[in-house]
Amino acid sequence: MARVFHKPTFERIPEERQERILRESIKEFAANGYLGTNINAIAENAGISIGSMYSYFASKEDLFLTIVNRQFALLERLLSSIDTETSFFLILEELFRVTMKSALQHPELSQIYLNITTSPLAAMASRISGTMEGHMAVFLRRIIGQAKQAGEIEPGLNEDFLAFCIDNLLMMFQFSFSSEYYRQRMRLYLGEKLSEDGEELIRQSVGFVRNQLRHSSLANP
Amino acid sequence: MARVFHKPTFERIPEERQERILRESIKEFAANGYLGTNINAIAENAGISIGSMYSYFASKEDLFLTIVNRQFALLERLLSSIDTETSFFLILEELFRVTMKSALQHPELSQIYLNITTSPLAAMASRISGTMEGHMAVFLRRIIGQAKQAGEIEPGLNEDFLAFCIDNLLMMFQFSFSSEYYRQRMRLYLGEKLSEDGEELIRQSVGFVRNQLRHSSLANP
Repeated sequence: MARVFHKPTFERIPEERQERILRESIKEFAANGYLGTNINAIAENAGISIGSMYSYFASKEDLFLTIVNRQFALLERLLSSIDTETSFFLILEELFRVTMKSALQHPELSQIYLNITTSPLAAMASRISGTMEGHMAVFLRRIIGQAKQAGEIEPGLNEDFLAFCIDNLLMMFQFSFSSEYYRQRMRLYLGEKLSEDGEELIRQSVGFVRNQLRHSSLANP
Repeated sequence: MARVFHKPTFERIPEERQERILRESIKEFAANGYLGTNINAIAENAGISIGSMYSYFASKEDLFLTIVNRQFALLERLLSSIDTETSFFLILEELFRVTMKSALQHPELSQIYLNITTSPLAAMASRISGTMEGHMAVFLRRIIGQAKQAGEIEPGLNEDFLAFCIDNLLMMFQFSFSSEYYRQRMRLYLGEKLSEDGEELIRQSVGFVRNQLRHSSLANP
């Protein structure tokens, strides 16, 4: 289970109010970054006093980590929504699709993620380290293991490195749909037309991994 | 040519002093992020008055973009140091090696890059958009075109998408050696031992791309 970063008092207020506080926090952190965010502004936007705010969260860092935790929970739900009782490449296709959709629907969550990876937040990263990547790593290892058993991947393949490369591609894919910088970068590489064609991008991405594996199974049948 | 973000006065001071100002700026921006950096602190660390600082740079943003420009120039130098009169996979191997070395030697430059990709800096990103990714995109398209001519890659391959995927892998590779967050993530996927073995990581990375291309040429000989 993920660690909890809010105080118990936060759970005692109506859910609607909890949601409003979290929604306003996500908006602020995504737009201004952790360092640029003022917890007073969040309290004001959420219609609560700063005193109440500190009775729910011990610090700006704890509020931020509560948001990050919600992102992990969202990712966990997305992963568990994927049907894994099918071929490796259909699972992979759905994984890219779900990643793109969630990046488009919740760009602010990716923006917060990008913020975590910067060095001023390194100390904080160690408080959450492993959780988010953990879910994805477990998922990828499971579907790769399954594909190996089904003979879709050659037995000699380094599964850890394959999982790492797939996640690297997935992350850059996610960033390309949620960060303005990465969006411009994608257009530079792929042009306006392909950059806007999500399904074609998914097809090409899965193709990139697929060729890699298809070759492996050709080499070691 | 890259745009210039400093004032002409900056070029009139001794090079040694220019270097000291830029060095202290890199240190501050990398450690604290753009939003967390105080230009007064940089002036103090560089041993100049804040008045002089503003006579060299119109704003904190211009100072930051000057640093970013230097990173682009460094990348350009690194790319031009790579011998491209050899096979595609040897060039690729050298590209991963140069990326790793530069990330280890200048982690603060990657940290500043990670900072640019976050949303509070989106407006600024448009002032530099294209420059850095531009150099890499041109380089990758050139070596892919060359490999196609030499018959190392099948003619039907989508070159743009291949360049994009290779750069995606290169960027995550770079981040894994320069951001504490990504370093922990790499360890989670690959374990302590493989994460420390740079040459093996390069070998596996090139192998990942190589299999993809080798398969393609098998499919369409």
